[in-house]
Amino acid sequence: MKRVVVLGSTGSIGTQTLDVIRNLPGEFEVVGLGAGRNSRLLAEQINEFQPRAAALAEQEDLSRLKRELSPQDKLDLDWGIEGMKNLAAMPEADLVVIAVTGVAGIHPTFTALSAGKNVALANKETLVAAGQLVMDLATRKSKALLPVDSEHSAVWQCLYGYSFDQLEKIILTASGGPFRSANSVDLEKVTVEMALKHPNWNMGSKITIDSATLMNKGLEVIEAKWLFGVDYAQIDVVVHPQSIIHSAVEFKDGSVIAQMGLPDMRLPIQYALTFPQRVPGPAPRLDWTKLPKLTFEAPDTSKFPSLLLAYEAGKTGGTMPAVLNAANETAVYAFLQKRITFLGIPTVVEKVMEKHASINNPDLGEIMEADLWARATAGEFLRF
Amino acid sequence: MKRVVVLGSTGSIGTQTLDVIRNLPGEFEVVGLGAGRNSRLLAEQINEFQPRAAALAEQEDLSRLKRELSPQDKLDLDWGIEGMKNLAAMPEADLVVIAVTGVAGIHPTFTALSAGKNVALANKETLVAAGQLVMDLATRKSKALLPVDSEHSAVWQCLYGYSFDQLEKIILTASGGPFRSANSVDLEKVTVEMALKHPNWNMGSKITIDSATLMNKGLEVIEAKWLFGVDYAQIDVVVHPQSIIHSAVEFKDGSVIAQMGLPDMRLPIQYALTFPQRVPGPAPRLDWTKLPKLTFEAPDTSKFPSLLLAYEAGKTGGTMPAVLNAANETAVYAFLQKRITFLGIPTVVEKVMEKHASINNPDLGEIMEADLWARATAGEFLRF
Repeated sequence: MKRVVVLGSTGSIGTQTLDVIRNLPGEFEVVGLGAGRNSRLLAEQINEFQPRAAALAEQEDLSRLKRELSPQDKLDLDWGIEGMKNLAAMPEADLVVIAVTGVAGIHPTFTALSAGKNVALANKETLVAAGQLVMDLATRKSKALLPVDSEHSAVWQCLYGYSFDQLEKIILTASGGPFRSANSVDLEKVTVEMALKHPNWNMGSKITIDSATLMNKGLEVIEAKWLFGVDYAQIDVVVHPQSIIHSAVEFKDGSVIAQMGLPDMRLPIQYALTFPQRVPGPAPRLDWTKLPKLTFEAPDTSKFPSLLLAYEAGKTGGTMPAVLNAANETAVYAFLQKRITFLGIPTVVEKVMEKHASINNPDLGEIMEADLWARATAGEFLRF
Repeated sequence: MKRVVVLGSTGSIGTQTLDVIRNLPGEFEVVGLGAGRNSRLLAEQINEFQPRAAALAEQEDLSRLKRELSPQDKLDLDWGIEGMKNLAAMPEADLVVIAVTGVAGIHPTFTALSAGKNVALANKETLVAAGQLVMDLATRKSKALLPVDSEHSAVWQCLYGYSFDQLEKIILTASGGPFRSANSVDLEKVTVEMALKHPNWNMGSKITIDSATLMNKGLEVIEAKWLFGVDYAQIDVVVHPQSIIHSAVEFKDGSVIAQMGLPDMRLPIQYALTFPQRVPGPAPRLDWTKLPKLTFEAPDTSKFPSLLLAYEAGKTGGTMPAVLNAANETAVYAFLQKRITFLGIPTVVEKVMEKHASINNPDLGEIMEADLWARATAGEFLRF
């Protein structure tokens, strides 16, 4: 029985993680649950999974949570970053799933690794902003950083058993988002509602917008660089609108190994949870005779400059990827609040990056400072 | 430096094997070469690779070979099955490549394994006719049977690092051959010239006809059963006309791992030669942005009954797969000699199978006897 803490349990990845666990009775014990502000759903999850501890983001939501719990639920309740960190370091836990969105996922990841836990990482920002630090820590602690999102899980599955020095290239596939075939004029008129309609994946709103701008793929490029120890020149992005090939690797001999499946996050989540085992799960099976035509094309970086900005930030290194991420997050929320246009998102990111003097080999404090600086600077451009 | 014997060196796989070796200077020493009747090409190969021993199929070709060799070529020359077996057991050899076509490849495979050599197997008939025996021998001798043809190499590459008990299903892809989209009426009129035009792969004539009837895929199903220790119910065939995905595996969790590449036999050949290493080779690289649309469909077994016959023979087991193979080989050669029609090939195979009383757990003698019986019986149907 693997004992699991799920941080971000009420979000898209969190609920799917609990769905995977629900479908594998006897395999996992949920010992801790951490959520944002959705106290009602957290209460339901506590009633179902009976963890020993739980936490919410805000203190003011705690009393509401307590009202929703059954009187027989006996557990430690906490809140805020300290609450999340305490969950991440729970002595009972074997594996901590970091399904928290945004930069808030960074601290619990470091806490979990420092406490000697394996980490299933669904939080992009940790590797984007603090890739070098978190990989160094995982190596020092001999703990695994198990990728949860579909592309890195695909690469990881393709590389299983192979040594990384046989790797020539990583091919990250991208759906291309809902505006792949639109021209620039149309992109001017993209509304929030249009951008939230992803063709293949059902995800949270921040990541759905990032998919539409291709920034999501750009962040994944930076993550892949750290997870698999490659250079940026070794990472290609290929647009594959059907999202059946989730990513691939090319070895030194030219042979390509790809991971395929229907678009269902429960498969990569389950693989991270059961690794190195594979067990039957709830994800639907691929029926080859019902597959659409699989197509591939180069990403149009003139239409979607966010991808190039991410490569640029990654190659600059230091605090620049943290700045890219923070500026993008700020710009995306501004777009979701209808304060800027769709095409304004990369414009804001680019402007903030231009103003930033990157610090090399930053520590976590300098990274968080750069993150805050980037949010403030983006805010100025947005006239917050 | 790996010391290699290549049997069937003048055929399609043999010449490509030597091309791979030529492109990896310093990696391999060719210590033995065995060929059929092409003494001129064998002489060229001897001049280039300077093996210590060589053999031809027929004694009468030996003197011609000697005339073609340079006077400074000092090597042991031999002929016939004994000549091939001696090459397969050469004390100097680390790896024996069995690129001999047809049932003639079986004995040298057994000899090589018995002599404690690793075997790179490009000969389908060995596993089809004597799968149980050859796998038992390889296990007993702790020697590897390295698949060379593209589909099994693909499955093998996909499974690398994974234990076979995590495997749910093998998906063998098939180009569907040149008549995939033809209707039954057209198939009546297929000429030898039409059948020899394979859309994707450049191969020998026997295997090209087998590709057109789908018998090639049927034989591969039987090979896969033995190589990967699965049941027939775990092997699916999917028609994929573009031959980019060379085959795939589905694990217990539903995740699919596929091997991809341009259709070039030098890649799987090289992988078998350099295994477990991967090194840059002569095969061209996959350019994702230039890929055609990848399509998949179920094989039409009413048009191509050979595939069902192969499954049937495999499930019956015993000597039936040897009979399937021998009857098919006889029928294909009759077709190549324009004695029977294209649709006559599976008809002959089916008739011979119907007449055969399969022997369970046959030894090699009984297998070879069943092979000869099937050829004779097929001959009767063909009125040889």
